[in-house]
Amino acid sequence: MKENSFKVNEHSLKTAISKVEPNKIVTRGYNQRDLIEKIRYSDMVYLLLKGKLPTLAEGKLFNHILVSFCDHGATPPSTQTARLISSSGSPLNAAVAGALLSFGHKHAGAIEKTMELYQSSIDSLNLTGDADLDNTQIASLAIDIFTDYTSKGEKIPGFGHRYHTVDPRAQKVIELAIEEGMIGNHTKLALAIEDLVHDRKNIRLNIDGANAALLSDLGFTPALGLGVFIIGRIPGLIAHINEENMEEDEFRRFCDIEDIIYEGVGR
Amino acid sequence: MKENSFKVNEHSLKTAISKVEPNKIVTRGYNQRDLIEKIRYSDMVYLLLKGKLPTLAEGKLFNHILVSFCDHGATPPSTQTARLISSSGSPLNAAVAGALLSFGHKHAGAIEKTMELYQSSIDSLNLTGDADLDNTQIASLAIDIFTDYTSKGEKIPGFGHRYHTVDPRAQKVIELAIEEGMIGNHTKLALAIEDLVHDRKNIRLNIDGANAALLSDLGFTPALGLGVFIIGRIPGLIAHINEENMEEDEFRRFCDIEDIIYEGVGR
Amino acid sequence: MKENSFKVNEHSLKTAISKVEPNKIVTRGYNQRDLIEKIRYSDMVYLLLKGKLPTLAEGKLFNHILVSFCDHGATPPSTQTARLISSSGSPLNAAVAGALLSFGHKHAGAIEKTMELYQSSIDSLNLTGDADLDNTQIASLAIDIFTDYTSKGEKIPGFGHRYHTVDPRAQKVIELAIEEGMIGNHTKLALAIEDLVHDRKNIRLNIDGANAALLSDLGFTPALGLGVFIIGRIPGLIAHINEENMEEDEFRRFCDIEDIIYEGVGR
Amino acid sequence: MKENSFKVNEHSLKTAISKVEPNKIVTRGYNQRDLIEKIRYSDMVYLLLKGKLPTLAEGKLFNHILVSFCDHGATPPSTQTARLISSSGSPLNAAVAGALLSFGHKHAGAIEKTMELYQSSIDSLNLTGDADLDNTQIASLAIDIFTDYTSKGEKIPGFGHRYHTVDPRAQKVIELAIEEGMIGNHTKLALAIEDLVHDRKNIRLNIDGANAALLSDLGFTPALGLGVFIIGRIPGLIAHINEENMEEDEFRRFCDIEDIIYEGVGR
Repeated sequence: MKENSFKVNEHSLKTAISKVEPNKIVTRGYNQRDLIEKIRYSDMVYLLLKGKLPTLAEGKLFNHILVSFCDHGATPPSTQTARLISSSGSPLNAAVAGALLSFGHKHAGAIEKTMELYQSSIDSLNLTGDADLDNTQIASLAIDIFTDYTSKGEKIPGFGHRYHTVDPRAQKVIELAIEEGMIGNHTKLALAIEDLVHDRKNIRLNIDGANAALLSDLGFTPALGLGVFIIGRIPGLIAHINEENMEEDEFRRFCDIEDIIYEGVGR
Repeated sequence: MKENSFKVNEHSLKTAISKVEPNKIVTRGYNQRDLIEKIRYSDMVYLLLKGKLPTLAEGKLFNHILVSFCDHGATPPSTQTARLISSSGSPLNAAVAGALLSFGHKHAGAIEKTMELYQSSIDSLNLTGDADLDNTQIASLAIDIFTDYTSKGEKIPGFGHRYHTVDPRAQKVIELAIEEGMIGNHTKLALAIEDLVHDRKNIRLNIDGANAALLSDLGFTPALGLGVFIIGRIPGLIAHINEENMEEDEFRRFCDIEDIIYEGVGR
Repeated sequence: MKENSFKVNEHSLKTAISKVEPNKIVTRGYNQRDLIEKIRYSDMVYLLLKGKLPTLAEGKLFNHILVSFCDHGATPPSTQTARLISSSGSPLNAAVAGALLSFGHKHAGAIEKTMELYQSSIDSLNLTGDADLDNTQIASLAIDIFTDYTSKGEKIPGFGHRYHTVDPRAQKVIELAIEEGMIGNHTKLALAIEDLVHDRKNIRLNIDGANAALLSDLGFTPALGLGVFIIGRIPGLIAHINEENMEEDEFRRFCDIEDIIYEGVGR
Repeated sequence: MKENSFKVNEHSLKTAISKVEPNKIVTRGYNQRDLIEKIRYSDMVYLLLKGKLPTLAEGKLFNHILVSFCDHGATPPSTQTARLISSSGSPLNAAVAGALLSFGHKHAGAIEKTMELYQSSIDSLNLTGDADLDNTQIASLAIDIFTDYTSKGEKIPGFGHRYHTVDPRAQKVIELAIEEGMIGNHTKLALAIEDLVHDRKNIRLNIDGANAALLSDLGFTPALGLGVFIIGRIPGLIAHINEENMEEDEFRRFCDIEDIIYEGVGR
């Protein structure tokens, strides 16, 4: 029985990421000395995750995506958790770790779920190679998805925002991808769904939905899409933690004793 | 008594990071739509952490630093923790969080400690403005530090590497900073200490020591220096976690039952 | 749309756990002064999780269960993660937190999954009240489960151990529950499945399977079952972390540079 | 240079906690089958942490201490973090892990700091064996500590509570320890300090201060004292997480967009 045979893996490990030799580190086939000198940090992220450097156009789009994830103020659960932990006097790395733990299915799950939706829809056609779908094919997939979710009374992931009617980041990354000729099947599908959703419910793509489509076109798996979101969001979290450390000397809390309604048994 | 008066802070929060309005997000004074279009991701990180955009030369150096932190293979404790947690079937964000928790004082502490050392040494001179120190002043500070640590029999933080005799990343970032005219007092001090340490013990600056000096010259606090290290290292951690998920179906472990020597009481 | 209406919950919170008044704390209806004086810690755990004190027999069984989860040496992923993080110089709470993050679906998932299996099987009969099932009914459910898993070629959760042919903890808690008259429908079902599995595959209930059945009989939900496992396991993790801090000054690692097989692109 | 010689520890591990053999687990010298049958869970915790079973009186006191740590309602930072993470849809183990990360120096640090204070004070006398100090010796140590902190204008750790004027838990555990004849030098010292602090500032021992003294008398190190606090607090955290999962479908947050005062640069 496979699951039960946890015999030790001989302490060996196979990896394709970095080869470390005395005084030399090679990552994804490139000497780190050259990478440090020549490439942008966003390209380094791409190289690490995808195993190859992006083309110029891919690198440009990937950079837009990373920037667009950076910060949405102090109200997302991850930022609140980071500030709360930091306000208790815990070190920076602990506050970032805690923030990551609040990427639950209600908060950061959308990107992964949306990528799965777009990719499974496109994959269902069993295309060979990188063939572009025509508008009719895309429209048909979009209608299937829209009908499926509407009939179940469920929200389509990647659409709508609790605060913005038009998510300015989503609009911008899509606008740039169009200008730069980087719209593939997944983004066409996302835009076709948006047409339907917007017509009927006045709801638009949010940043998770837009980036889920663009990252799918760039060939990222849903799991790595979540990774890209995490990478993009961490600098903002660290800015919040740093601000918290400088400014506040009290614990944060979302309610105090007088805000609590006790519903337990009396005695 | 201050520490005891944890009265609630009225649920308000002051921040200078992002201002969120309907359909508009402004970060550090810039509309995110413009940031997404125009700046490199490494500059976005700089903007978030420092509150202003870097100059061209600062941005170039900061990019080198971020790239140089990216990955050192599968053996650092953080990478091992990430892979171990991932091999138990936990989700990506949990594996990254666990990895962050292994940035203890033996692993990631060096960058913060080294920045404190350089900054307190330079600060002790009470310079006005950005005055450059001359070689005699730098040499004198370096000798003080070297003598202090040597007399206590302690290792100077930021020097030596368990595997490399010359850390290729440290050498490269310093080389580039020199070429790009970005060497300030802190890096001069680091290089002066390296002269002493190398002469007597054949030990050189490691990547933490080099980046600690360069980040200090760029005006980062030690706490934010650790933040920059975390930001730089996370993409590599995610690449390792992703590889682990694809390749292995057994738990990682550093020892198995037969490797354990039981030293407890007999019975 | 429900999922999108994240409006703030007015900073209020309803709870039935503890009522805090000046100089008085009441938990689940009992003054903490009385709880501190009169009840066993295992009963306090039961009270917190279930909202009421156990009967004598329930309390006795629950105590056995908590003790039985305590420690299985240094090889489980959680213990390895705790020791690895601790060996990097991180504080105790961070090492415990990291260990919790390795309770992934391969490691700690069994208890929850097994409780779901037993409870959904029993619930499918729509019993009224606490009616005991007769042997024929139990046997029929057991055969259904056994057939279902066997036909899918899957392992039934809660059975088999990578190291023990007979898990001594599982055997003991079941033995005690029988002696103490605490076997209900879920445990009867587990034992009936064990008869089938043991006959055909020489595999027995493991500690997760045994406790999953007993906790189901005690009325715990699967989610709280995982909670009980976590509570039971933490003291052992802390013992390991403490030992690591005292004894070792090197990083733990499951492989070193020479154990790594680089499979990346050549260059 | 010691710190730099991280050569791998040959994948071996020495431990005195548990010996795992086929079908037999021995913990701290006792067969787990016997432990499961015969001892209370609180005694198992003691055995794991201290390496030996408590005497009857020690076990009784240790049980009081564990119960007294259990829950202080929904306002401590750890509970708030647990609820916040849970409200984002993250799994139970992640929410507990996040809660542990908010045990920063402002929140859970008191117990460790207080134990260090009491133990270093008593240790400074270089007593041989378990000699009890007389009242004059204790009073003298108490005055030293009181004077030291007062002159620095600092709060003595372990005293005062933000909400209670008399912490009912502290009062109760001390009361029980007196009745049960379990007051040693460290608790005598804590009570002598309380006399001074209460006279002059109307402040009393809190639960951290009381338990720090009692755990010191029981021979726990400060690090393990924090461990006991963590063990004691986790069941309460899990009760809160479980309640959060059942009751609420919104994110918790300590402030919403309209509560934020933006202080950044205008543009």
